[in-house]
Amino acid sequence: MQSLWFENQKLEFRVDVPIPIPVEDGALIRVRLAGLCSTDLELLHGYYPFSGIPGHEFVGEVVSSPKDPSWVGKRVVGEINIACGGCETCRSGLPRHCERRKTLGIHEWNGVFSEYLVLPLTNLHTVPDHIPDDLAVFTEPLAAAYEILEQTQINPEDRVLIIGAGRLGQLAAQVLQGTGCNLEVVARHPKQRELLDHRNVHTITEQNLGDKKYDVVIEATGSSEGFLWARKSVRPRGKIILKSTYKGNVQVNFSGIVVDEVSLIGSRCGPFEPALRLLAENRVDPRPLIERVYPLEQGTHAFEYAGRPGVLKVLIQPADFYLPK
Amino acid sequence: MQSLWFENQKLEFRVDVPIPIPVEDGALIRVRLAGLCSTDLELLHGYYPFSGIPGHEFVGEVVSSPKDPSWVGKRVVGEINIACGGCETCRSGLPRHCERRKTLGIHEWNGVFSEYLVLPLTNLHTVPDHIPDDLAVFTEPLAAAYEILEQTQINPEDRVLIIGAGRLGQLAAQVLQGTGCNLEVVARHPKQRELLDHRNVHTITEQNLGDKKYDVVIEATGSSEGFLWARKSVRPRGKIILKSTYKGNVQVNFSGIVVDEVSLIGSRCGPFEPALRLLAENRVDPRPLIERVYPLEQGTHAFEYAGRPGVLKVLIQPADFYLPK
Repeated sequence: MQSLWFENQKLEFRVDVPIPIPVEDGALIRVRLAGLCSTDLELLHGYYPFSGIPGHEFVGEVVSSPKDPSWVGKRVVGEINIACGGCETCRSGLPRHCERRKTLGIHEWNGVFSEYLVLPLTNLHTVPDHIPDDLAVFTEPLAAAYEILEQTQINPEDRVLIIGAGRLGQLAAQVLQGTGCNLEVVARHPKQRELLDHRNVHTITEQNLGDKKYDVVIEATGSSEGFLWARKSVRPRGKIILKSTYKGNVQVNFSGIVVDEVSLIGSRCGPFEPALRLLAENRVDPRPLIERVYPLEQGTHAFEYAGRPGVLKVLIQPADFYLPK
Repeated sequence: MQSLWFENQKLEFRVDVPIPIPVEDGALIRVRLAGLCSTDLELLHGYYPFSGIPGHEFVGEVVSSPKDPSWVGKRVVGEINIACGGCETCRSGLPRHCERRKTLGIHEWNGVFSEYLVLPLTNLHTVPDHIPDDLAVFTEPLAAAYEILEQTQINPEDRVLIIGAGRLGQLAAQVLQGTGCNLEVVARHPKQRELLDHRNVHTITEQNLGDKKYDVVIEATGSSEGFLWARKSVRPRGKIILKSTYKGNVQVNFSGIVVDEVSLIGSRCGPFEPALRLLAENRVDPRPLIERVYPLEQGTHAFEYAGRPGVLKVLIQPADFYLPK
């Protein structure tokens, strides 16, 4: 099959990758449309050692499901953590944090920039018919944005700041708008501001950030610099939600965090069902984020383009299911 | 009056410090007994620029209160943050985090290693008669331990770890024992272990720490090294309560915190009323922590002794109110 393949710091398009065999209780899925995420770019920069097929955001169609053939033909999205089901973390109800987990396109499991992938059936969610592919492909990152509300209560009177108006920042803005909170977003690029203006989300620049002003700050810049802005702008007893993964460490003054009693909350993958419901009810619409759709064979160009400053969503289309407007 | 005085990196005993004049709505307090805290030691190591009289843990007697003479003669303890009352943070109900606050013996306000101090009346709490001085002097650090419960819900089924069994770790252990949680404490020194054994608190060493095992970890070592142990031992989605203030930064891998969805919660001063209630009801007893009581004129020796590894509570006695057994 055709796939993007990452090995020895190099991404290439291959045509001779074997079609994977479904795991027990698993499904073989034909990819209809896939999304490029900052984590994919960071993976190429060495954030995490990985070789194989990258990518973890997708919508696809089940073509084979030996254990339960009723899945065949269904359009699905899939959760990215492949849990063992038996460890203490799984049994405590946190399979997304399974100690022995593999992660789609990130850790020991081939990803979605390919014609086919396999996932356990427990990871799959059926996509309602009226959600088109170019909406459904946002389920995973939208769930990650939703995770903020899973972890933190945000009240209507809260002053909330999102730092970074890229792929995740835009989705987080749409999700948090639903809470009725007093929301501001730091946006650097005109296109980012335009999209937020269009949804009546107030945008500001780093230079206008008030000191110690916000109850909740979401750090979604994808860089270590973002934390410094977050720390400056959060109020005493406020919360900083950390959403960025990148290579390297950050120098943190913990005494300042103790004195101001600030909370830092790491936040990663989120629940798929609310994300699908938001999409089904048309309460969020991430489609304006789509900038380009590349065919799979031009996947390396897709990565190059997605890495440019200010670029929002880049999609990769392995087959001809999806025809961009 | 007699005071310890810190200036130009040097602590000395002085006899010619002017007795302070109470602020408006304030009281002049004669110090009966004062406690030495790690923050005092860190202050001398340059954690925070300060000159003047250090110290913030005390029990004393009001000798003058121009605005409300009914306070005169009362035995009191005092909160350490002197708030402005008018800023946005004060008005939002967080005077302990006032943006313009001064802090007793730490920031722009002379402290308690002295014959007298002044504080606003709003900072004072009357000590019930049956709480002796050598218990009442622990109110402030006990309140700081209580702050953990003010910020974080700890359930009886939670596995909780305290790293560090020094002054604060011991008090935190006594407070957290009250929640019925499954508590373990990392204790390095025999005396620390002995006190915890005596209260039936399970102690362990760093070497026996399980990986990613604890729901809540309290970092109370007073050093940057403690964070590394905390990070290693907290479970995914668990919480690390940061209690240490020290000079310098810590290198943190934020991506790991995002992936494990760990929360870091800075924790400083706490509520005095529950602390006084715990002492009044005899539910905690910090007195076994007291190792030595120094007269004020030997205060520099008190600092030297308190800085030795494993030493627990050192008290300073400005007058002859208190006679150690």
